[in-house]
Amino acid sequence: MRDIAVFSGSAHPELAAEVCAHLGVPLRPTRVDRFANDCLQVQLQANCRERDVYLIQPLVRPVQENLVELLLMLDAARGASAARTTVVLPHYSYARSDKKDAPRISIGGRLIADLMVTAGASRILAMTLHSPQVHGFFSVPVDHLHALRELAAHFHGEDRARLRNSVVVSPDLGNAKEAAAFARLLGIPVAAGAKQRYADDRVEISSVIGEVTGRDVIVLDDEIAKGSTVFELLGKLRGLGVASIRVACTHGLFAQGALKRLSAEEDVREIVCTNTVPIPDEERTEKLTVLSIAPALAEAVRRIHNGESVSALFDQP
Amino acid sequence: MRDIAVFSGSAHPELAAEVCAHLGVPLRPTRVDRFANDCLQVQLQANCRERDVYLIQPLVRPVQENLVELLLMLDAARGASAARTTVVLPHYSYARSDKKDAPRISIGGRLIADLMVTAGASRILAMTLHSPQVHGFFSVPVDHLHALRELAAHFHGEDRARLRNSVVVSPDLGNAKEAAAFARLLGIPVAAGAKQRYADDRVEISSVIGEVTGRDVIVLDDEIAKGSTVFELLGKLRGLGVASIRVACTHGLFAQGALKRLSAEEDVREIVCTNTVPIPDEERTEKLTVLSIAPALAEAVRRIHNGESVSALFDQP
Amino acid sequence: MRDIAVFSGSAHPELAAEVCAHLGVPLRPTRVDRFANDCLQVQLQANCRERDVYLIQPLVRPVQENLVELLLMLDAARGASAARTTVVLPHYSYARSDKKDAPRISIGGRLIADLMVTAGASRILAMTLHSPQVHGFFSVPVDHLHALRELAAHFHGEDRARLRNSVVVSPDLGNAKEAAAFARLLGIPVAAGAKQRYADDRVEISSVIGEVTGRDVIVLDDEIAKGSTVFELLGKLRGLGVASIRVACTHGLFAQGALKRLSAEEDVREIVCTNTVPIPDEERTEKLTVLSIAPALAEAVRRIHNGESVSALFDQP
Amino acid sequence: MRDIAVFSGSAHPELAAEVCAHLGVPLRPTRVDRFANDCLQVQLQANCRERDVYLIQPLVRPVQENLVELLLMLDAARGASAARTTVVLPHYSYARSDKKDAPRISIGGRLIADLMVTAGASRILAMTLHSPQVHGFFSVPVDHLHALRELAAHFHGEDRARLRNSVVVSPDLGNAKEAAAFARLLGIPVAAGAKQRYADDRVEISSVIGEVTGRDVIVLDDEIAKGSTVFELLGKLRGLGVASIRVACTHGLFAQGALKRLSAEEDVREIVCTNTVPIPDEERTEKLTVLSIAPALAEAVRRIHNGESVSALFDQP
Amino acid sequence: MRDIAVFSGSAHPELAAEVCAHLGVPLRPTRVDRFANDCLQVQLQANCRERDVYLIQPLVRPVQENLVELLLMLDAARGASAARTTVVLPHYSYARSDKKDAPRISIGGRLIADLMVTAGASRILAMTLHSPQVHGFFSVPVDHLHALRELAAHFHGEDRARLRNSVVVSPDLGNAKEAAAFARLLGIPVAAGAKQRYADDRVEISSVIGEVTGRDVIVLDDEIAKGSTVFELLGKLRGLGVASIRVACTHGLFAQGALKRLSAEEDVREIVCTNTVPIPDEERTEKLTVLSIAPALAEAVRRIHNGESVSALFDQP
Amino acid sequence: MRDIAVFSGSAHPELAAEVCAHLGVPLRPTRVDRFANDCLQVQLQANCRERDVYLIQPLVRPVQENLVELLLMLDAARGASAARTTVVLPHYSYARSDKKDAPRISIGGRLIADLMVTAGASRILAMTLHSPQVHGFFSVPVDHLHALRELAAHFHGEDRARLRNSVVVSPDLGNAKEAAAFARLLGIPVAAGAKQRYADDRVEISSVIGEVTGRDVIVLDDEIAKGSTVFELLGKLRGLGVASIRVACTHGLFAQGALKRLSAEEDVREIVCTNTVPIPDEERTEKLTVLSIAPALAEAVRRIHNGESVSALFDQP
Repeated sequence: MRDIAVFSGSAHPELAAEVCAHLGVPLRPTRVDRFANDCLQVQLQANCRERDVYLIQPLVRPVQENLVELLLMLDAARGASAARTTVVLPHYSYARSDKKDAPRISIGGRLIADLMVTAGASRILAMTLHSPQVHGFFSVPVDHLHALRELAAHFHGEDRARLRNSVVVSPDLGNAKEAAAFARLLGIPVAAGAKQRYADDRVEISSVIGEVTGRDVIVLDDEIAKGSTVFELLGKLRGLGVASIRVACTHGLFAQGALKRLSAEEDVREIVCTNTVPIPDEERTEKLTVLSIAPALAEAVRRIHNGESVSALFDQP
Repeated sequence: MRDIAVFSGSAHPELAAEVCAHLGVPLRPTRVDRFANDCLQVQLQANCRERDVYLIQPLVRPVQENLVELLLMLDAARGASAARTTVVLPHYSYARSDKKDAPRISIGGRLIADLMVTAGASRILAMTLHSPQVHGFFSVPVDHLHALRELAAHFHGEDRARLRNSVVVSPDLGNAKEAAAFARLLGIPVAAGAKQRYADDRVEISSVIGEVTGRDVIVLDDEIAKGSTVFELLGKLRGLGVASIRVACTHGLFAQGALKRLSAEEDVREIVCTNTVPIPDEERTEKLTVLSIAPALAEAVRRIHNGESVSALFDQP
Repeated sequence: MRDIAVFSGSAHPELAAEVCAHLGVPLRPTRVDRFANDCLQVQLQANCRERDVYLIQPLVRPVQENLVELLLMLDAARGASAARTTVVLPHYSYARSDKKDAPRISIGGRLIADLMVTAGASRILAMTLHSPQVHGFFSVPVDHLHALRELAAHFHGEDRARLRNSVVVSPDLGNAKEAAAFARLLGIPVAAGAKQRYADDRVEISSVIGEVTGRDVIVLDDEIAKGSTVFELLGKLRGLGVASIRVACTHGLFAQGALKRLSAEEDVREIVCTNTVPIPDEERTEKLTVLSIAPALAEAVRRIHNGESVSALFDQP
Repeated sequence: MRDIAVFSGSAHPELAAEVCAHLGVPLRPTRVDRFANDCLQVQLQANCRERDVYLIQPLVRPVQENLVELLLMLDAARGASAARTTVVLPHYSYARSDKKDAPRISIGGRLIADLMVTAGASRILAMTLHSPQVHGFFSVPVDHLHALRELAAHFHGEDRARLRNSVVVSPDLGNAKEAAAFARLLGIPVAAGAKQRYADDRVEISSVIGEVTGRDVIVLDDEIAKGSTVFELLGKLRGLGVASIRVACTHGLFAQGALKRLSAEEDVREIVCTNTVPIPDEERTEKLTVLSIAPALAEAVRRIHNGESVSALFDQP
Repeated sequence: MRDIAVFSGSAHPELAAEVCAHLGVPLRPTRVDRFANDCLQVQLQANCRERDVYLIQPLVRPVQENLVELLLMLDAARGASAARTTVVLPHYSYARSDKKDAPRISIGGRLIADLMVTAGASRILAMTLHSPQVHGFFSVPVDHLHALRELAAHFHGEDRARLRNSVVVSPDLGNAKEAAAFARLLGIPVAAGAKQRYADDRVEISSVIGEVTGRDVIVLDDEIAKGSTVFELLGKLRGLGVASIRVACTHGLFAQGALKRLSAEEDVREIVCTNTVPIPDEERTEKLTVLSIAPALAEAVRRIHNGESVSALFDQP
Repeated sequence: MRDIAVFSGSAHPELAAEVCAHLGVPLRPTRVDRFANDCLQVQLQANCRERDVYLIQPLVRPVQENLVELLLMLDAARGASAARTTVVLPHYSYARSDKKDAPRISIGGRLIADLMVTAGASRILAMTLHSPQVHGFFSVPVDHLHALRELAAHFHGEDRARLRNSVVVSPDLGNAKEAAAFARLLGIPVAAGAKQRYADDRVEISSVIGEVTGRDVIVLDDEIAKGSTVFELLGKLRGLGVASIRVACTHGLFAQGALKRLSAEEDVREIVCTNTVPIPDEERTEKLTVLSIAPALAEAVRRIHNGESVSALFDQP
């Protein structure tokens, strides 16, 4: 069997190290140089020849730097005769650019997918893409994981009585399928905020569908960036007299101080996310819990490498 | 300027003839042969050389026959030295296959898009794709129209008093953006059914967001096939005491007798759709009104041919 | 070595089952759904990851349905990370569209070949393509089998005296190379009908080259659809006073009642074909003998899978 | 309209000059250098930018030199921003490599077609390809001319009485369609040699189908290289007591002294070919008549450039 | 003729405005948004349909941001049905990554060229690429300009006596061809520094070939980034007793304070570069003269748009 | 592991045989036919199915014949289901066409690279490409060897005293990096001719940088074709009073009698090259020593086949 070789770009080396630890293989070193003219050069510092290569690089801030770095790594692996190169993409930020809602813009999620293939990607291992259609933007095979098991395990570890009184709330009916699956994992009911669109530029959560009053609420979203939607939902939930609020998401982007602002809300008891996106220590708060999806990524890589079914493990529960 | 040449496949020649009438150009003849071995052959029976060719073919029942016929027409136009070939696709049925919700299936909406490009499509003129992300499945330019103006004009032509008492209802919050745009065109409010997902296989409309009681309801959906969602919404609306119900959609597929069943509902006063999908005379009912999108398609073709902005005309209001 | 995974589409599951039996591997299940809008969805219901996948699907009636189904299966296998996907194509009906004999038509045999590659075909296993040039329409490797050994074995099993008195007759000098090879396998002489073309639309068999009078004739053609050529040849042979007539072909399409009509000819003693094309029980007649090419296909698949020479076995004798 | 720019490679500059004279446009100069290391460099010595470029180069002896030269010209035209580049290919020698009649060979006709497209060919103007399927080897549009009108005009110019007594004879039933079309142009009957294949390596003309005794025979073939088939047919015709023999073909390759050997046959009164292939003066004989297809090529180029139908003029009569 | 539409990215809007002023066409507006997740969105805010589109964007600091922005603009233009999209690339920083001088690195100059083509570039207008081979990295036509005329005109405008006493010095024999062409434009001699390589990591200018003592030296290089080579050459020139020193280059990158450091050298009288790279006002010094290549770019764009020869104007003198 | 299969074209079968001897694998037979119309056909006469195929063919005189032969072999290997096909290209003559130094020419080094990929090359094993940028012309992985170790070993085997007195001289500063590496291998100093360019068409070696007087000179170049540069350098070296002259290069093309002319120079004591290019016995002289790079190629092939690092062995010393 072809050997495995795992490399990390600059985006999230801690996650890469953790994935390798779970796999029991070394994280191969990468050398990134920036020339005087601001161009990057990346050297993969281990033999790739006929290897099954994995490049771990979430497209997180600084997105453009991390993207170009990834493209250079892909081309380097191809030129170095890798047998196959899989991009491990724990967060694909450009997936949000998934439609043409204004004339003469690029559908970035499709373009970046094509660029990765041009640069040499044989396949993609992604996690919780913003919309399921983004899968179809790729012309190479995609394994699409989610983190609901990890998030559910966290809440299962809690006080049983509270869990029995809990309800999962999706801020948005668009995500309701994922929220329902999550609720089923926890054995509790689900509810959802309903966004009413008065006009193109006037959207607001007009109601919450499902019983929440007196309940311990677990808000679930796929990602939190500025957090506007979550903050709006909080207002609504307070009005409905919920017992307590916890917030959970897969991708904790927390832009523009969102984490600190959310933590400052007194009735938010806990904020749970995974480590698909690195969060600097100085931005973390006491209310934050970061769960690791490294074991899940490692298991997926192991199965991809061994030719075992990935869907068997990671499909929607 | 290169001349225009418009051809129709077997799927919907009436619509093609109407588009040509509006354009003031002849519909060029096409000859379709079926050989003894069931293979198709299509001959474009007018000069295509250096022409700006348009092939009008919605992917409607029989979908596979119409698709292969379209692919043969595309290849014939390319081989005949067409300068550019635009597929006019008033209905793209495979757009519903837009995600991988089970392992080891094709994302048909992406595959068929790729096949059209392989066969020679230079560009696509589509109408109301099932999800906006499907736009990103195409590697050639897409002009994406909608039929809201045509549908709105129909209701504007009605009794003023009734219109003032009306409300647009989307069966589904996923379509709410389109419904809100439609309501704005009519100058009336909007509401939406909220589907709650109890489990993966248990979805139901749990509530209607927005005021509908005593109102004359216009249900708006992008397409009606078997009509299950609409029937469920009807039940909910009746429970809320609405004054009257009309049903409007862009794509009237009406599978499995849906049109007759819907017309049989006493409180449904009118069913309005466009002619993106052909409806045989024998299936039509008295309550049905079919609006023509031929003028809109013709105007879009004219602008594409002349290099004028299409977005200026047809973007979401 | 990568494992093998064999799937069948809807076109000819019996043949697929037989091939698998000969290979000693299970036929993996496939699920075909047809949605309300007439679109197909195919799910390959066994792990394809890193497998050597074979999709068995002759392009037989309904050709368009079977073709689109095959394309969806190819894309599904690619998306499911198959290591290699071979289309086993016992009959390729579009191979007859191999030239541009009218302006502004597609050369369907080339187009469909390109579509299969776009959808994900890595290679093709074909049988008796209509013309040998069709091999060159594919941009992926093709293994091109023939069924002459199977047909010859059948006649070898007959009365020795009769075989010694037999002659192979090709209806057409275009097929004479194959007929000569077949005759050599049987150790008997060969003759051929000569079609004279008086004008583009006036072709007739003007003579038979070679001795046939008093002989037991075995008419050999690659395929019989409507059977027009064979019927014309029969008339000519009768005029020449042949002793008996049997008809053999690889692909028994038998369109428009050809099998019943041919069986109704009193002096036709036997009709022999292979099972590349499924023949419904209700169309079969007493004079029909169907030989199985499943062992040959299975042996070819085995050799392809194991990297052994296929030409060594199956080249023209 | 974009200007036209016509260039010739080294293969047949006389033909190119003649085509340009008929078109009334200058033949643009080309400079071919051969470096010390035997590599070629071709410079197109006139502006190609946004021009409609035509490169005239039959693939004749020395085939490999002429092919690589053509590929370099194609790439040069593309790099020089030609709007479109048409290869005018009066003779495509690799068209004879159209099937895989031995294992592990290339189907050269397909490969060379792909190479021309890789190098930048937008379209092809070909003449009398060896088999009609070769058209399908190209992934770009092909205009496929024939020279039957030119050849027929020559014989029409003859003594009326002799023409009335003439018959067209194809050496081979494979070419009979073309021969019948030619006979119809002349208003005379057609006959054909029937090749019987005793074994793979034993083919001979066993009979001539149609009346030839006492007739003035015009043998018609697509090309004559070594002339083996024609020589065999001559023997057969003599045996049948024909009145006189003339030989006509489109591509006069005349390899291995075929022209001199054929001219030495006393009863061969005339050998007629076209100038698709250059024939050195020292090889020409008194019996040879070379007809020019330059007017036909020029008319086709004019129509391609102006976007007029080519099939209208040149399709099979 | 198709209309022209010129857009600028964020890299160098001043240069784009100047080019448009010379062309007499408006610079079309572009809107760049950066989302909360750090992804970019670029909207081309004028009709591109069937237009001849030019995107002006040197790949200068921040290179990765400017590159991704350019790729998004290219895809937007393609999706908006541009007839043709030319990247105007006054500086291509990744051209320095033109070889594989370490194992397992990307040849960035080739990769980025491929990415631009994937994103939709039809052609490139470049200026003074780092090595002439980089032209061959592009699979689309490249027009390759230089700035020698602009630089020469500047020195021609000087004191005649001084010019007569001047000599052009290339820091490096690799650039000597360009330096000789420049000297010929000025009518003065040329000299060059000879770098001797003692070992891979020990290169130094060991001598200056040609007469420089007592001369007014014009050092000419293609680009100055950190300026190490120029500083070393200055030392050598001083040792040889030159009369005065001026420094000229096309691409004034001036990284790591190079401009201030060079200006601080007393005997450096003038530093001349072009505006291919933007230089912030606060970094400029009194000794710096920036020449505009906007007229040259505008003239090239005009000729490309009108289909006139570009090589006629801009080839090496 | 996939088996290896090595084939040779007509260009240099002796080298191929030697490589196979070192590898310990048989050289598989190839059959080349030339048809009457001058077209080539190549048959690979051993099973390629799932094999790791190597085609050894330097692009040497006759370059065009050898190139087309190689392309046919590549396509044959692909059609025969080779798992991977590596072109072993000991000399790539078209690498000299690496830039566009005149308008409207092809950059042949890029075009031929693209043609090889179109024909089926999976990867390239090259030796001492004319410029390192040519590596970037290939879209498939390239392993780029050099012959410095072989050349150095030859001179190490000499008289120690003479070696200590020797100096490596590059005719050209462009090659100085390679010359310095070579000198380091020998433990001796390096010098270089400096070409001054008075005008575009007036280049001459104006000086030699480094100490050569009284030294035993080893002139090192990458290739010698007509030898003009070397002859010019010889004149310069004599003027500087060198003790003796030997000439070494990797690619001994020796066009236009260069080998005999160089051997006729009395003070040239030895000419050393490798066997990347075949030298006919009748052209060889007594002063010529040909070193074999077959062991190096064989070791590279072995490592490529086994997935071991090639750079580890063959990178620049």
